[in-house]
Amino acid sequence: MASLMRGWVTGFFTYETTKSVVVKSWSVGIINRVVQLLIITYFVGWVFIHEKAYQVTDTGVESSVMTKVKGFGKYNDLVMDVADYIYPPQGTDVFCIMTRIIITENQFRGRCPEARKDFQCSTDADCHKHLGSVRANGIITGACIDISESKGRCEIEAWCPAENDKVKNTPMANVENFTIFIKNSIRFPLFNVTRGNFLSMSEKQIKTCTYHPELNPFCPIFRVGDVLSYTNHTVDGLAEQGGEIGINIEWKCNLDRNIENCVPRYSFTRMDATFTSSPSKGYNFRFAKYFKTENGTEFRTLHKAYAIRFDVMVTGNAGKFSTIPTLINLVAAFTSIGLGTVLCDIILLNFLKGADQYKAKKFEEVSDAQIEASITPSPDSQSSLKPGMKSSYDSGALSLCTSD
Amino acid sequence: MASLMRGWVTGFFTYETTKSVVVKSWSVGIINRVVQLLIITYFVGWVFIHEKAYQVTDTGVESSVMTKVKGFGKYNDLVMDVADYIYPPQGTDVFCIMTRIIITENQFRGRCPEARKDFQCSTDADCHKHLGSVRANGIITGACIDISESKGRCEIEAWCPAENDKVKNTPMANVENFTIFIKNSIRFPLFNVTRGNFLSMSEKQIKTCTYHPELNPFCPIFRVGDVLSYTNHTVDGLAEQGGEIGINIEWKCNLDRNIENCVPRYSFTRMDATFTSSPSKGYNFRFAKYFKTENGTEFRTLHKAYAIRFDVMVTGNAGKFSTIPTLINLVAAFTSIGLGTVLCDIILLNFLKGADQYKAKKFEEVSDAQIEASITPSPDSQSSLKPGMKSSYDSGALSLCTSD
Amino acid sequence: MASLMRGWVTGFFTYETTKSVVVKSWSVGIINRVVQLLIITYFVGWVFIHEKAYQVTDTGVESSVMTKVKGFGKYNDLVMDVADYIYPPQGTDVFCIMTRIIITENQFRGRCPEARKDFQCSTDADCHKHLGSVRANGIITGACIDISESKGRCEIEAWCPAENDKVKNTPMANVENFTIFIKNSIRFPLFNVTRGNFLSMSEKQIKTCTYHPELNPFCPIFRVGDVLSYTNHTVDGLAEQGGEIGINIEWKCNLDRNIENCVPRYSFTRMDATFTSSPSKGYNFRFAKYFKTENGTEFRTLHKAYAIRFDVMVTGNAGKFSTIPTLINLVAAFTSIGLGTVLCDIILLNFLKGADQYKAKKFEEVSDAQIEASITPSPDSQSSLKPGMKSSYDSGALSLCTSD
Repeated sequence: MASLMRGWVTGFFTYETTKSVVVKSWSVGIINRVVQLLIITYFVGWVFIHEKAYQVTDTGVESSVMTKVKGFGKYNDLVMDVADYIYPPQGTDVFCIMTRIIITENQFRGRCPEARKDFQCSTDADCHKHLGSVRANGIITGACIDISESKGRCEIEAWCPAENDKVKNTPMANVENFTIFIKNSIRFPLFNVTRGNFLSMSEKQIKTCTYHPELNPFCPIFRVGDVLSYTNHTVDGLAEQGGEIGINIEWKCNLDRNIENCVPRYSFTRMDATFTSSPSKGYNFRFAKYFKTENGTEFRTLHKAYAIRFDVMVTGNAGKFSTIPTLINLVAAFTSIGLGTVLCDIILLNFLKGADQYKAKKFEEVSDAQIEASITPSPDSQSSLKPGMKSSYDSGALSLCTSD
Repeated sequence: MASLMRGWVTGFFTYETTKSVVVKSWSVGIINRVVQLLIITYFVGWVFIHEKAYQVTDTGVESSVMTKVKGFGKYNDLVMDVADYIYPPQGTDVFCIMTRIIITENQFRGRCPEARKDFQCSTDADCHKHLGSVRANGIITGACIDISESKGRCEIEAWCPAENDKVKNTPMANVENFTIFIKNSIRFPLFNVTRGNFLSMSEKQIKTCTYHPELNPFCPIFRVGDVLSYTNHTVDGLAEQGGEIGINIEWKCNLDRNIENCVPRYSFTRMDATFTSSPSKGYNFRFAKYFKTENGTEFRTLHKAYAIRFDVMVTGNAGKFSTIPTLINLVAAFTSIGLGTVLCDIILLNFLKGADQYKAKKFEEVSDAQIEASITPSPDSQSSLKPGMKSSYDSGALSLCTSD
Repeated sequence: MASLMRGWVTGFFTYETTKSVVVKSWSVGIINRVVQLLIITYFVGWVFIHEKAYQVTDTGVESSVMTKVKGFGKYNDLVMDVADYIYPPQGTDVFCIMTRIIITENQFRGRCPEARKDFQCSTDADCHKHLGSVRANGIITGACIDISESKGRCEIEAWCPAENDKVKNTPMANVENFTIFIKNSIRFPLFNVTRGNFLSMSEKQIKTCTYHPELNPFCPIFRVGDVLSYTNHTVDGLAEQGGEIGINIEWKCNLDRNIENCVPRYSFTRMDATFTSSPSKGYNFRFAKYFKTENGTEFRTLHKAYAIRFDVMVTGNAGKFSTIPTLINLVAAFTSIGLGTVLCDIILLNFLKGADQYKAKKFEEVSDAQIEASITPSPDSQSSLKPGMKSSYDSGALSLCTSD
């Protein structure tokens, strides 16, 4: 029992290593080292240094954006301030600067002729085909009213008078000089790292600066005209029909380096640029201000606002050294170096002079027949095997050697 | 010195390959190939083709959503248009269609009896226990007023008269025929690929189409009734208490293929379906419109709006061939094929007839005792080792062979 | 032909395994097993159990947040209810509780003196230098008006009278007792798992509970005072200048375990804490309520609202067993165990007594010279090789052995 245990322990604490054939051939040797060098270069240069495969990456950046627009516009000779032209007012990441507003004042609920040209009619029948249309300003009643010179309009049940949004008016002036202040604080939850977008600026700098990609890349104050020019558009081009501008704040942080290098990078795109067909061109929305007459009747002023919408989008990723990706990639690297032998083996065993001799060196063959023979108690093989063996694990090469 | 250098160089440019034992046994040979085939099939079929392990994936899709609702409702016989029933008006990704509104008109600041039944009282003491309650319509003063037939109401300091939200009224009609137009442009920042949700549609198609999962899967116009039916709900079921509907736009793009195949897929869910207990059922919110009397006193109309809230959520991932994941997975595949030998070794060395002979072939043993013996200058081993060796690295098999 | 085919088939179904050298040495044996144990422990303990490397992770959680604030404040002795102090009203994930409001009533469009001290003047020249300023309340006309005792103010074209936001007033009382109800439903699209943030609570519990990190971690109702105290701030500290509070809902779900363990964890941070310089301190925004006089002239009440903004941010990741990461990590683990032999080989072949003998055992050398010799038809080597070989692949050790 004790000896069995001891045998097992001895067996357990043995060390097993592969037997190797060392080929002293310049041609294969050089090919082998060149292949290994290429693989190492690839892993060190591309995988580890360029792609930073030794880092774990956090892409789920948490972000809070506060915006504030400043500036005064003139629209139809009236002063417009922030409370007039910004919607929504609370300074979120998505906000609109209304640049052209079609105002339909003093609408009361009732029945009136539709203002749009599509709804011209000469008889009630012309209007019946529009019943249920969502393109009118109200519910089509089916009657054709206000007929003069055989041209009338379909009657609608709606807030009257109906809006005529084909009116041409010039957009608000001075929009290009408005400034947008953006306060952005982010957090990488995986690493619990918090950063703000203008931590490196002094209070005085922030009060006077304007963002410029090269001269002032960390200033959080953006001139609207500049932002549009970075997207290759102008205020004049957008103000009439509206549009969507994306302000992208990108945080790419290598947390293995100084945290001071973890800074935002701003970029600007026109979001609706992919859409070219007219139903999707521009950006507008309708809202109403409600009032009451003395006797309590509600009436409203309808606004159709063409606006430049700004979407402040924050993306980011942070990388930091971590053992798991490092290990997996190191193992991949080491194993890949080993894969170099596959190529060399093919050359060695097939294309080199003396390939058969190398084959004979590398491969040692055992066939069923041999095994059968050695099991069958033939005096020759048995005598040659047993004396030479120190244990049952002893080298098979020996038995072959002496059995000849 | 020069010869030492040459020796080192010669040593460096050697090629080392493992020595293998080739077993010519049908049983193990077939098992080996079958295991290898299974592993290869798994990697090719599942890992590479199905899971696309050769691609790097970008899941941080940037998205901009613009929505526009059209349609006219009738509520209490009054026409309701978009400016009346949509909140917020600016067409963001989250918007509400108010389906039932409890309006409390002409509220002035003051003191009045609470409208809710829970705040019935007969003495002031009954009201004292409600002090500080947030469930009333105002601040409980502690007085019990309006007592008639021993039933009074607690007095509140609030906008008066207090809202009675237990009123039953029928929701707005025609909501199911409203249409939602969704404009969505996305960008995969990793690959700098931009896509829109209806690029393949012509202008005319967009003006007339309505989304249908099979017939019109790329039309960006959704009928509210249809959207609700896809979630197995009806407008009638939701309009009374409100609810939250998620419109999910999913972009799964294989950028190794034609970009035209990178299209959105819409799906619809009822977001608040997981909540079944009453405090969380439905969706409502309160807002007020403020007015002024002639003499400047502010009063308001309070709206408690039950609404169907739509959340347009955009998710997406794009995959593109990349060397790093490909390499790691290839190495994993090759190494796994190698792991097949582990299984075969176990069979070969334990369960096969002649296992001991195979063991003898595979393992070559060196024990401390042997090494000791060969170091001790015994005439026999020394003479046998030295002549037969071409270098100090020469085969150990040789020494064993001749030392017997 | 048939025999060639049979030969190929026989060759294909051979099994090739590496020939190993078994070293029966206690020292190397123990080092080998200890290194292997360390590697296995690392992989099992850290990679698999702690880092759950056998799971695929979904970090793109879809989330829908509904919020509702309750409570009554007193501001300038006036009752304020939810419709008065919450903006935006519809209960989204970002909402503001206005704590201090500077109200400028009855503004009409016109010309008036600027209220800010910076715009004091004695001559028109003083005002000319302010032309185009965005820091005034309107467009600077360049005139200096209202001069008395040589102190005047620059004239602006704006909504008049101009706002004086240096007014000191006490913030709204009772904000700390307001409650925030948060309804959050999430979905992991990869696994199609949907969860709500208070599914485990009964209806009655929800009506009466208040969130507490230890006592009531799943209650969805948060007292504002508590939330601020968790961020180490007080209502008094924030109410005057406003601030941004982040309410983070974190979902970390191990979907291999019971879904009931997939619960939210709330944490609270002051988002604007990273910003310390004054232009970015606090949080405020301006909005206006518009009214009409009897004769139809529009006027407005301007509100500058200092507010506590709450951002409900939902982050989450869910992990579930998946074959691909498991396989890659298992292969990495197995390969790493193999890498242990690299260390042991170094010890064995360099630092152990009898290292040269071990080298001789492990490495079998073939040099170009040998191969040349065996190719050249020398009677000795040929006769020794051919008879002893069962096939062309036979052991090279044999030829070396007998060629001596």
